[in-house]
Amino acid sequence: MFIAMNRFKVLKDRTADFESVWMRRQSHLHEVPGFKAFHLLKGPEREDHVLYASHTVWASHAAFENWTRSEAFRKAHARAGDNKPTTLGHPEFEGFHAIQEVTADGTARRLG
Amino acid sequence: MFIAMNRFKVLKDRTADFESVWMRRQSHLHEVPGFKAFHLLKGPEREDHVLYASHTVWASHAAFENWTRSEAFRKAHARAGDNKPTTLGHPEFEGFHAIQEVTADGTARRLG
Repeated sequence: MFIAMNRFKVLKDRTADFESVWMRRQSHLHEVPGFKAFHLLKGPEREDHVLYASHTVWASHAAFENWTRSEAFRKAHARAGDNKPTTLGHPEFEGFHAIQEVTADGTARRLG
Repeated sequence: MFIAMNRFKVLKDRTADFESVWMRRQSHLHEVPGFKAFHLLKGPEREDHVLYASHTVWASHAAFENWTRSEAFRKAHARAGDNKPTTLGHPEFEGFHAIQEVTADGTARRLG
């Protein structure tokens, strides 16, 4: 399991616009092999922004990498930046490999 | 859905020790109402550390808050800091409310 997150510092008076861009977006992620789930997350409010994060769970790092090399990825990002900025600077990408798991039934295991 | 993350800046020569503490830990999270899943995540390597994150998915923010007020929480954190430090400074907590979801079957929806 691999989690791809982009962190966005959203201007405090632009959060509604930021959210609305995501809500209007047509997602094709579910057509991509290895896609598990996408969430848009609203995080803590800080001095000059509210932290948001896109949070995509992939079956593996390879599935994520295949997606970034695909036409679907190119299309999904082609219009990024069309709008008046709602954020401070660019999003910050962080990719995470899951190395340990505890599931709701109490199973704990080290992951590959 | 609420995601609770703690970000750890792990010293580059202490990653094995950091991981081993987590692997030896006895988790009781699955006994807590509203617990969905826990993952320990290994993130990007930076100049003086490797970023790790604990990543716990809760059914709701209320479920997370109830857990932080419980005896189980107190016990789970009682021994934190017993070991020789493996990190730069303290972990940084970030809590995230999921506001939009796309699942593997292509269902997209705004959340509560």
